[in-house]
Amino acid sequence: MPITYFDGAMNSPTATFLDLTRPYLAEVEARMRSDPSEHHPALADAIDHLLDSGGKRIRPTIVLLIGNMLGADIERVVTHAAAIEMLHTATLVHDDLIDDSLLRRGIPTLNAHWTAGATVLTGDYIFARAAQLAARTNSLRLMEAFARTLMTIVDGEITQLFDQEVHDFHQSYYKRIYAKTASLFEVASEGAALLADCDTDCVEAMRSFGYYIGLAFQIVDDVLDFTGDQLEVGKPVGNDLRQGLITLPTVLHFQDHPQAREWLHRLRTQGVLDEELETLIEEIRSSPAIERSLEEAQQFVHKGESRLDEMPAVPERDALYDLARYVVLRTT
Amino acid sequence: MPITYFDGAMNSPTATFLDLTRPYLAEVEARMRSDPSEHHPALADAIDHLLDSGGKRIRPTIVLLIGNMLGADIERVVTHAAAIEMLHTATLVHDDLIDDSLLRRGIPTLNAHWTAGATVLTGDYIFARAAQLAARTNSLRLMEAFARTLMTIVDGEITQLFDQEVHDFHQSYYKRIYAKTASLFEVASEGAALLADCDTDCVEAMRSFGYYIGLAFQIVDDVLDFTGDQLEVGKPVGNDLRQGLITLPTVLHFQDHPQAREWLHRLRTQGVLDEELETLIEEIRSSPAIERSLEEAQQFVHKGESRLDEMPAVPERDALYDLARYVVLRTT
Repeated sequence: MPITYFDGAMNSPTATFLDLTRPYLAEVEARMRSDPSEHHPALADAIDHLLDSGGKRIRPTIVLLIGNMLGADIERVVTHAAAIEMLHTATLVHDDLIDDSLLRRGIPTLNAHWTAGATVLTGDYIFARAAQLAARTNSLRLMEAFARTLMTIVDGEITQLFDQEVHDFHQSYYKRIYAKTASLFEVASEGAALLADCDTDCVEAMRSFGYYIGLAFQIVDDVLDFTGDQLEVGKPVGNDLRQGLITLPTVLHFQDHPQAREWLHRLRTQGVLDEELETLIEEIRSSPAIERSLEEAQQFVHKGESRLDEMPAVPERDALYDLARYVVLRTT
Repeated sequence: MPITYFDGAMNSPTATFLDLTRPYLAEVEARMRSDPSEHHPALADAIDHLLDSGGKRIRPTIVLLIGNMLGADIERVVTHAAAIEMLHTATLVHDDLIDDSLLRRGIPTLNAHWTAGATVLTGDYIFARAAQLAARTNSLRLMEAFARTLMTIVDGEITQLFDQEVHDFHQSYYKRIYAKTASLFEVASEGAALLADCDTDCVEAMRSFGYYIGLAFQIVDDVLDFTGDQLEVGKPVGNDLRQGLITLPTVLHFQDHPQAREWLHRLRTQGVLDEELETLIEEIRSSPAIERSLEEAQQFVHKGESRLDEMPAVPERDALYDLARYVVLRTT
């Protein structure tokens, strides 16, 4: 499957960020695949399979735009972008194994045809390769932020695994999506600013931009799980809820339906009838919770955009505004 | 179980390296446990369990002795030692999961009482923590060597998983133990020299010392799998061979018994009779292959020791000679 960056945005008149990043994204792609270390052909095949499976490459795009906006050395920026996307890829490999997912983006996962052992090790190798790329940015601060982010991501997954009893769903949701998504957007953006040697305020502004855009991105992902075209998303509608995962639309819908906690407990402990689940998914799909979720995402995008206002008025900044808008407007 | 560094060496009159490193090893231990990041209590418990399970801490000991011999900053040396031992710990967590091992050093492994998912994630977290510690040594070269080593280790395990048909057992054995053990001893030693800012020759000498000691250490481990006291080692005698793993004693024994390749193929494809396996293990235990394996280890130790000759004649150097001798003399 060819990689098609931002398919949705292609139809939008504001997709200038594509023109600005396309050549560099090709370099990021090459950097991810050009591992000079001697390694087993099965591993090389697995990495090719994973990278061929696509993904929007939104994290590298943000890195490239911020790095170029602030005038960082492009070689180091490309390396950082590759490190971030490899780290993201490694976490997906272990996630899919843990969740026993057989498809991602409609393409078979590694664990669908490999043993658990081979899948664990492939994820480990990609983590190591990501760390090597991060070290090659020649920034110790970036390297440390990178390691800290991996700790945050993994801690979030462990918390999700162990803490099935949640008291405050709204708070717990945000904590989880910070760990799962926003933390990586944060280090992607912060790291690009670090490579440009910009001052503390500027690094903090970009960290904050990444943080808000990451939260919004994940909320929209979770909304699309309910509203998206089943074929495009590659999963059944309401897949998260089917897995017992409570995302923002469900949290907000439950706020108006106090019996929900008991229902959820039943879903997790004894299971519920299929019809009951289908009914709930349909209810949420057509409820105001969808719109309210998108409003929360939109608010984060506004907060993120406001951090761009203080940045140099170059085409890359316009592209970052576009990208921020795309995050809430996208349909896949 | 209290941690007892080098129990075997305690009875040896040359165990001066213990006196030189004991206080710093306590700092390494504290560094490994003092993770300031917010993380789930289950994760903290798991890490405590893993670190309490002991291990000889031979890698941190080498780091401390080389670092102090060359006058590196002790804070950075302790951090590097902790990073190396955490990396080692993380690889054991994933190894035990992949091999489905329920005991290590006679103590239940994480996967013995946790789900595969929780075990994968705990290993990931410890990898990330190791990377964070490595970044805190403030040496980009060390950081990159560290990442490269993780790639080497994982590639070795993947090769072992995929390449069951081996043509040259001797060569394949050395390739495997380099990836599995010597590569980490190498980066432990090389890294300590890097922190001391010693010149290229000195860094190379210490890298080489670690390399040879690491090879010898693993050979002795593999010999002890045949000859060790079953209770002390915590595994049945000949455990490696029972798992289909061909180590040096078996390689050397097979050199005198050309029918071995066919036998091995049978072990891996259709299994062999228990009595047949017990007989072979007994044959190897009492064969000259044991002594010849130890001679190969001894030769590596000599090569490693020769790299010490060019180092400053301080007590830490004497301790490193002692440690090198201990590697072949140890009984656990």
